[in-house]
Amino acid sequence: MGLPRADCPHKGSPMTNDLFLRACSGESISRPPVWMMRQAGRYMAEYRALRAQHSILEMIKDPELAAEVTLQPIKAFPLDAAIIFADILTLLEPMGLQLEFISGKGPVFHNPIRDAADVAALKPIDPRRDLGFTLDAIQLTRERLAGQVPLIGFSGAPYTLACYAIEGGGSKDFDQVRAWMYAHPKIWTDLMDKLTEGVTDYLLAQIASGAQAVHLFDSWAVSMSQADYRRQVAPWTRRIFETLAREAPDVPRIHFSANGGHLLEAIAEMPVDVLGLDWRVDAKAAIQKLGTHRVYQGNLDPARMLASDEAVIEGAREVKQAFSGAKAHIFNLGHGIIKTTPTDRVRLLIEEVRKA
Amino acid sequence: MGLPRADCPHKGSPMTNDLFLRACSGESISRPPVWMMRQAGRYMAEYRALRAQHSILEMIKDPELAAEVTLQPIKAFPLDAAIIFADILTLLEPMGLQLEFISGKGPVFHNPIRDAADVAALKPIDPRRDLGFTLDAIQLTRERLAGQVPLIGFSGAPYTLACYAIEGGGSKDFDQVRAWMYAHPKIWTDLMDKLTEGVTDYLLAQIASGAQAVHLFDSWAVSMSQADYRRQVAPWTRRIFETLAREAPDVPRIHFSANGGHLLEAIAEMPVDVLGLDWRVDAKAAIQKLGTHRVYQGNLDPARMLASDEAVIEGAREVKQAFSGAKAHIFNLGHGIIKTTPTDRVRLLIEEVRKA
Repeated sequence: MGLPRADCPHKGSPMTNDLFLRACSGESISRPPVWMMRQAGRYMAEYRALRAQHSILEMIKDPELAAEVTLQPIKAFPLDAAIIFADILTLLEPMGLQLEFISGKGPVFHNPIRDAADVAALKPIDPRRDLGFTLDAIQLTRERLAGQVPLIGFSGAPYTLACYAIEGGGSKDFDQVRAWMYAHPKIWTDLMDKLTEGVTDYLLAQIASGAQAVHLFDSWAVSMSQADYRRQVAPWTRRIFETLAREAPDVPRIHFSANGGHLLEAIAEMPVDVLGLDWRVDAKAAIQKLGTHRVYQGNLDPARMLASDEAVIEGAREVKQAFSGAKAHIFNLGHGIIKTTPTDRVRLLIEEVRKA
Repeated sequence: MGLPRADCPHKGSPMTNDLFLRACSGESISRPPVWMMRQAGRYMAEYRALRAQHSILEMIKDPELAAEVTLQPIKAFPLDAAIIFADILTLLEPMGLQLEFISGKGPVFHNPIRDAADVAALKPIDPRRDLGFTLDAIQLTRERLAGQVPLIGFSGAPYTLACYAIEGGGSKDFDQVRAWMYAHPKIWTDLMDKLTEGVTDYLLAQIASGAQAVHLFDSWAVSMSQADYRRQVAPWTRRIFETLAREAPDVPRIHFSANGGHLLEAIAEMPVDVLGLDWRVDAKAAIQKLGTHRVYQGNLDPARMLASDEAVIEGAREVKQAFSGAKAHIFNLGHGIIKTTPTDRVRLLIEEVRKA
């Protein structure tokens, strides 16, 4: 713990607000730091104005625009962390999958993985060459933040990447992916190996570019039973965290899986610093099961933000209370902020969290 | 327990196969009975042939067709229970919501609930007048089954009905519904009261028409945290089960909520005979937590049915083993059967379950 992590391992301005990093380290702090998943996004007029002129991929691939979008919520609200504007799926493009965001439908891959030959054809990535736009955006954002708050980097986890790569887009439960996994256990292993290598290299490059914490989003792990998660997913997620723990021990590692309450025990066995909890997870019960010695992130129901000021305040108090038994708590929504969330409620929530 | 439930409380032929009802009663039996959620449906060529000529609502509303579809899987496979062909949402139509099944989109309500006036305008149902087609289908199916296997009736649970009524159709997480619930606690209560009355009357009428067990599907309860479920959903679900337990004590009550692992403790506190488990629920852990004295139903991952014969056999053995510590186990998939499931695998699974 000793030195605040704020100015290590990266060069850069000393941190004005290092509450988030101290919470990640498990330090006892006066109040939970607060940020929100998808905080750079459609609920902000500033974002929609840019989005009207550019596609999502254009915004991600232009470091100037990505840095600007990343900073929009930081300028508007007293948040305790920034998260780089990027997408969990961009990694798959340089591996050979043709990604397109289709309005009203979400991400679509035009050449999904079908067989062993498709997996064999996946290319290893060179983060600088292939995803330099996000690395540059991280560097630019760090410069502009000038130590105001820390910057979080992220990637989709191998299983979630596999879901999109095999399904070719979104799905309710990704049944076809599990069917493919059960039918082709050896090809599954090869695919997960390749994705794991890509995610690891990408996150290490983000850290080298200035990311002060890394967030792994396994958005679709919810589609797995715990037994299958332990067999078919966890070994690869663990490998990523182990490599990061070895190569960048001072950079906190955060995990989040939407509605992944049934997987938390398996996730908690990995070298992860912060366990993100979905809004459906009973925080008190999770802390009791997984231990008070851990750092937790979450988990206000984002739907409360649409309801009323009272619903936000009541929910924020319940969440703070529920996590009060843990070593440290990072306040967040229990899922991404909903695009119709009024910005006044964002301000109200942050004020409520900041109250002692 | 004494008398087998088979020929009570309804008239009708003595049961040739009462394994399912005996398992519901918690009797120790030689092997788990087996049936499959959505077993009457699109994976069967016989169903698709009828469906090519009729809309879903036409099939539901014609007792002859509904009985025929109900019996299709019973004729094709050695299943231990039939479930009436109907829909969890038909109840909302006579209450005043205009239902349409749109191809590729699912159920749509053209006049969703927006405010207190919409809730006040919901009409109480008279099951015989409003949903007589399903009651007649139940009676017809019982006659044709002639005691071969028991017949299960069902309805959507009030919360899931509220989800569709407010959202006006399907949704990933029904965020708007929870927002509405947080914003309008009193109207929420009124809506749940009305839906609960409708579901109770409908299920009692199904029992009076010959349903030998009733299944409550709270498909979207997964979108609630446990705390909100206990406050905003459980009291109404409990009221239904309590009324059924009082009015029809010999008819087993089954509950299923897709991916509702985090809600099982709250559900287990209700007067329910059988707890249905989604494929993502760790059966051994659930039994350990909720007790070996209960009857459980589930929970093979339906995606295994698409994968390979080996994946089906391996999964079936794991499921049987996982539930072996419970008082009784009804074998089922952990979600509805997927429409691309090969019928040979259905046969294979049933054979595997029937092995001692």
